[in-house]
Amino acid sequence: MKTSVCIIGGGPSGLMLSQLLHLKGIANIVLERQSREYVLSRIRAGVLEHGFAELMREAQCGERMDREGEIHDGFFIAHEGQLDRVDLHKHSGGNSVVVYGQTELTRDLYEGRDRMKGQVIHNAEDVQPHDLTSDKPYVTYRDGDEIIRIDCDFVIGADGFHGVSRKSIPKDKITEYEKVYPFGWLGVLSRTPPVSPELVYAKHERGFALCSLRSQVLSRYYIQVPLTDNVEDWSDDAFWAELKRRLPAELAAKLVTGPSIEKSIAPLRSFVAEPMRYGRLFLAGDAAHIVPPTGARGLNSAASDIYYLYHAMLQHYQQGDSTGLDGYSAKALARVWKAQRFSWWMTTMLHTFPEAISYDQKLQQTDLAYLLSSEKALGSLAENYVGLPF
Amino acid sequence: MKTSVCIIGGGPSGLMLSQLLHLKGIANIVLERQSREYVLSRIRAGVLEHGFAELMREAQCGERMDREGEIHDGFFIAHEGQLDRVDLHKHSGGNSVVVYGQTELTRDLYEGRDRMKGQVIHNAEDVQPHDLTSDKPYVTYRDGDEIIRIDCDFVIGADGFHGVSRKSIPKDKITEYEKVYPFGWLGVLSRTPPVSPELVYAKHERGFALCSLRSQVLSRYYIQVPLTDNVEDWSDDAFWAELKRRLPAELAAKLVTGPSIEKSIAPLRSFVAEPMRYGRLFLAGDAAHIVPPTGARGLNSAASDIYYLYHAMLQHYQQGDSTGLDGYSAKALARVWKAQRFSWWMTTMLHTFPEAISYDQKLQQTDLAYLLSSEKALGSLAENYVGLPF
Repeated sequence: MKTSVCIIGGGPSGLMLSQLLHLKGIANIVLERQSREYVLSRIRAGVLEHGFAELMREAQCGERMDREGEIHDGFFIAHEGQLDRVDLHKHSGGNSVVVYGQTELTRDLYEGRDRMKGQVIHNAEDVQPHDLTSDKPYVTYRDGDEIIRIDCDFVIGADGFHGVSRKSIPKDKITEYEKVYPFGWLGVLSRTPPVSPELVYAKHERGFALCSLRSQVLSRYYIQVPLTDNVEDWSDDAFWAELKRRLPAELAAKLVTGPSIEKSIAPLRSFVAEPMRYGRLFLAGDAAHIVPPTGARGLNSAASDIYYLYHAMLQHYQQGDSTGLDGYSAKALARVWKAQRFSWWMTTMLHTFPEAISYDQKLQQTDLAYLLSSEKALGSLAENYVGLPF
Repeated sequence: MKTSVCIIGGGPSGLMLSQLLHLKGIANIVLERQSREYVLSRIRAGVLEHGFAELMREAQCGERMDREGEIHDGFFIAHEGQLDRVDLHKHSGGNSVVVYGQTELTRDLYEGRDRMKGQVIHNAEDVQPHDLTSDKPYVTYRDGDEIIRIDCDFVIGADGFHGVSRKSIPKDKITEYEKVYPFGWLGVLSRTPPVSPELVYAKHERGFALCSLRSQVLSRYYIQVPLTDNVEDWSDDAFWAELKRRLPAELAAKLVTGPSIEKSIAPLRSFVAEPMRYGRLFLAGDAAHIVPPTGARGLNSAASDIYYLYHAMLQHYQQGDSTGLDGYSAKALARVWKAQRFSWWMTTMLHTFPEAISYDQKLQQTDLAYLLSSEKALGSLAENYVGLPF
């Protein structure tokens, strides 16, 4: 097989880029190791920044998002028994975020690909990029007993943190930066009305908690837990009881509980690989960088990668100019690191660090107190939360 | 002897409060362990925030400061060979700082006290406050062989980090929060014109440097050094050479060097003691809190303590209302911690931490890159640097 751009990974980043390129007549193939059903069963983020929502519209996949997604103009921070609202709309100068589950968004992108008869190959096993530093790279995968080869101009590594793309880069050609946090998030999805119409980030001495939502009938809650905890240790009852302890009494009293339909523990990690290019391979999204979920940067951090890559590809294929491709890594990383900084900051401010010296605990409390007292600090939070400009 | 308010410590905080109270007819005595000459020989900070300058004027000691002090509307941040200016005036909505040496300021306060025939007792040895939790506290000191007793209503502990005041509070009645940094500042004072009309904070992989000044003929420079260094290890030549290495070439070329007239190494420390009141003893300034000098909060952090104490004393003596005194500690600490947060943040962003993991080094670089790219972040820096409202 032959194509222009071979995209490894059929998650939101890969599908979005595939759709955008296709709309501009740039041939591409998406290779996904899992089945479509498996991809759609993954529970992921639900807060889309302005720029991501714009890309969905440009990809002609934003209709249902605009109809069913909820515009959030703010969120709450709970601390010391009280609830303060952060007015994102006001402090970002008129921007907001869209709450729309990543699963729904991925479904919309698949439908976009189907509609345009895009090539998305599922269950592609043993995907492997080759000859990345040559002019003629190619990607192979296995379909049953058959090895299939796709010749292409460029390979996009949009296959996530554990994917093959980043691992195909020789160790001495890539630097990895990592920070691991001494806790994880225990998350529960339940078919219950959310306790708050907007997200609630709760700082509590027992640990952080987050009240999030996918829709007005589907709630997503999280609590900070030690990394040594196992999901089996947490009955639904124990989860709800602990969540209530970490919320202001007024809010806890309104919490509607119900059976969990998904329950899992995720560790928190900050990770960046530099550069984001190796020869004709370009990394995007989780393949190159991971953030802890506080601050909702995960999916959004991929959005600028896709935006830059998309425009660089257009420049290359339409004008024969590869300065966009050559500048991709530096440009993408500049914004990636800002999202890393923001996610680290929100995580540090709101979580309980078991080893923190008391001075640092006071600093965290002061960080929050200062934030809530300062228009400038709230402005800084808001511009990061709704997404810095591409 | 008998007075209303006995102030321990004849540095800027104690003298300022003494002067302010005296102007409102509230009797007070200042006790200083050292001679006036000794106090005036100490080299200290030189950047006064707006609010501190206002207090100097209210204390009728601001005339020379207004005449000789320099208004600075901004400062520079040097990094990666370039120089970016932070426009404090613009980003703080019209505020600025005054560059005026603490020595000059202390001299002006002494002159104010002399003019008004204020009681400032120097060389007061073995100062000791007594019966602080009673209605009738008193302070004793030794003058030669004689023990002198001052009965008073209140005792102010403005005697610095190593003073007796904080140490007079029983250990179980006070909590100390502390953070020590793995480096110090080697400072040089020289009779040379400053390399830059405004301060230059330099982030460099070899370590932080600061180009400061006392006047257009008196420069103050600092470089970050390991705590294991001794001042004897640093010849003037070695100092100037190292300073130049840490500045952008363009600036280094303009540096006028000369013999040091003072050279010393100071460790960097963050420290807060809570509460700032014990019975009838009220702590102010360095007696209760210390910041690293990055961000110029030291003296300024004392300004709000003096402001709050002054107004609380007025309320008490003029209206018989002690809510101000009762609320002093909480009110003062709220602002003290914000200055702590800011000083910690500027210190962390600009210094090289020998033990930092590479991820954290990238975070620091990003913190600076984000700061310089964001009006909101610059606004937050500026409002802290010129001084948060009292």
